[in-house]
Amino acid sequence: ILREMARPLLPHYGEEWLKVYHKILRALRELFRTEQDPLLIPGSGSAGLEAAIGSLIGTGGEGKALIISNGFFGRRLAAIARAYDQEVRVLEGELDRPFPPERLEEEIGAEAGLGIRMVAAVHCETSTGVLNPIRDYAELCRRYGAILVVDAISSLGGVELEFDGWGLGICVTASQKCLEAPPGLAILAVSREAWERISRTASPGWYLNLRTWREFAQRWADWHPYPVTLPVSLLFSLQKSLERILEEGLAKRFARHARMAGLLRRGLKSLGFELFVPEEYHSPTVTAALGNEALPAGELIHFLKEEQGILIGGGIEELQGKIFRIGHMGSQATPEMILPVLWGIEEALRAKGLPVEPGESLRVIDLDFDLDLEVKTGE
Amino acid sequence: ILREMARPLLPHYGEEWLKVYHKILRALRELFRTEQDPLLIPGSGSAGLEAAIGSLIGTGGEGKALIISNGFFGRRLAAIARAYDQEVRVLEGELDRPFPPERLEEEIGAEAGLGIRMVAAVHCETSTGVLNPIRDYAELCRRYGAILVVDAISSLGGVELEFDGWGLGICVTASQKCLEAPPGLAILAVSREAWERISRTASPGWYLNLRTWREFAQRWADWHPYPVTLPVSLLFSLQKSLERILEEGLAKRFARHARMAGLLRRGLKSLGFELFVPEEYHSPTVTAALGNEALPAGELIHFLKEEQGILIGGGIEELQGKIFRIGHMGSQATPEMILPVLWGIEEALRAKGLPVEPGESLRVIDLDFDLDLEVKTGE
Repeated sequence: ILREMARPLLPHYGEEWLKVYHKILRALRELFRTEQDPLLIPGSGSAGLEAAIGSLIGTGGEGKALIISNGFFGRRLAAIARAYDQEVRVLEGELDRPFPPERLEEEIGAEAGLGIRMVAAVHCETSTGVLNPIRDYAELCRRYGAILVVDAISSLGGVELEFDGWGLGICVTASQKCLEAPPGLAILAVSREAWERISRTASPGWYLNLRTWREFAQRWADWHPYPVTLPVSLLFSLQKSLERILEEGLAKRFARHARMAGLLRRGLKSLGFELFVPEEYHSPTVTAALGNEALPAGELIHFLKEEQGILIGGGIEELQGKIFRIGHMGSQATPEMILPVLWGIEEALRAKGLPVEPGESLRVIDLDFDLDLEVKTGE
Repeated sequence: ILREMARPLLPHYGEEWLKVYHKILRALRELFRTEQDPLLIPGSGSAGLEAAIGSLIGTGGEGKALIISNGFFGRRLAAIARAYDQEVRVLEGELDRPFPPERLEEEIGAEAGLGIRMVAAVHCETSTGVLNPIRDYAELCRRYGAILVVDAISSLGGVELEFDGWGLGICVTASQKCLEAPPGLAILAVSREAWERISRTASPGWYLNLRTWREFAQRWADWHPYPVTLPVSLLFSLQKSLERILEEGLAKRFARHARMAGLLRRGLKSLGFELFVPEEYHSPTVTAALGNEALPAGELIHFLKEEQGILIGGGIEELQGKIFRIGHMGSQATPEMILPVLWGIEEALRAKGLPVEPGESLRVIDLDFDLDLEVKTGE
């Protein structure tokens, strides 16, 4: 995939390039499970989220917006939405749980929700590993006439998501997480209903205004169906990674992520760590666990980096120093990546003088982990 | 430079990465000739222009804005500015000339300009090759208290520009033109005066709001001084290309661009083509010439692509079918790139039955072109 980044550049327009471009769109439609053509916007995932939110709510106060927030990236959604409309209402949830659909229904159901036009939520909250039930949110949003914007930056391609089937409004991801390409591209699926709402919203701005993108997709369709220069190297790389993802098959891929998450979590528990989020609520793409007295989170992160060259994440804001986070997305959701992390954590425990035998956590895993990674699924 | 794109990714935070990041900022300060730390925003050049314009004018009508427009990219500045403030005034110039500073002075000078807070202009208008006298615009803006935003996307690194020395307000470029890296990054230099103005402007939006970038640059300085994931592969590539640019030396580089532009233009004229822009107004980074009866622009572009595998540009909007454009920026400003284009154009003329001897345009060049590319400069 990285090799694709060094390919000689094609100009970002013209017949030859458009073949590549349309091939990428086809693969993305499969990935999102949608009939709609996704949009590719040069920028980070947050740029994509802002394009979705800003285009839907505008600054004209044309309908209330609700943000579901139970972590750092939920707060980011709120920061973005409030940069358009200070009246945006933010529903704060607990950090270690999914935000309950019942609380959403209280806010948007019946009279309470009159005039709520948009709801935004994070699917996998990367800062904690919580997986929010966006399918339930989507159902409520459809019932009460709101458009749901989903941040699927660290979930799409690693966990089930059906854009058309679940009735999402706009779903945003980025090139660098489960999609395994380098960072630099925001990718959006946009439903008919969302386009309809956008066309009736007066939204400021040009680059992150989805109307601009739609206009070029239509007017310049046969030559350059986007308003700006696309990062062609990133698109070559994305094309390759999408090919690999679809070759593996989505169902198989989701099962692999779930299995690797289970493996890591059993290992962590066998070493005495407590997961930050109960396992049934934890995304298969990232695991957060609490540091403990034997090995505080900060010390573990430092030890892994300095002694093992393994980079894992820490807690953000109020969770700093409390939790450590291990991402297992895409090519990192493999035994080759998970087992060395557990091995390294054992080393860290031994370095603190704890009696952990080398391979202890791995043995616990082996007990109920067969090494046949061919996952059988209905697909 | 492309090889850098395939480098294993570093995470976009932490000590090791910040060393790379600060090295890139140092090189960019040299390139822009500024003491200020430039900003790197994942996105296209237009994203950078919007960040500059939107952050300076906001939607609150806090001061009038003027856009200088004499081509497609000037119109883009106008489209971006009007997406914030419909009252933005656009000064339309002629397509084949620089926009006269005198006309700008009429608009912002003395009473006429009372309350004009921002002026935006394109340095090299890529759609025509016109080089606008931004140094003169900057002087007027300073005199009358407006901040000048400059689109230097196809000029910075190929033609003289002094950010601090000329008193520019915000200067925007992108990774892919004269900087020779792949597309995907907007790069901005922002003056103290511009920051001061931005801090007093209520601007909507989060990602393209420069206040967001300043806040993270300050608050997260020692870990992650930007609000989003940076495209690390692009930054590696940019680092390499900046190294090469500064090794060559800016003065030498500018002389090389001017020399190659001259070479191409003499060749085109010797083959009977008329330049679209008088030579003294033409940017050294791109050349536009008129098609003629012997060889219309569209036919030439088609022939070069199909028969020679050489991609050159056409005219945009009202210039479509009238002009052809040849970019000569960075590594394309070399005899190895220029001579085959002239050779190919000769072929195209012969294919139309015209009596052009192979190498005719090249001989004209050779007459006053010594092949010693070591340009002597004061540097």
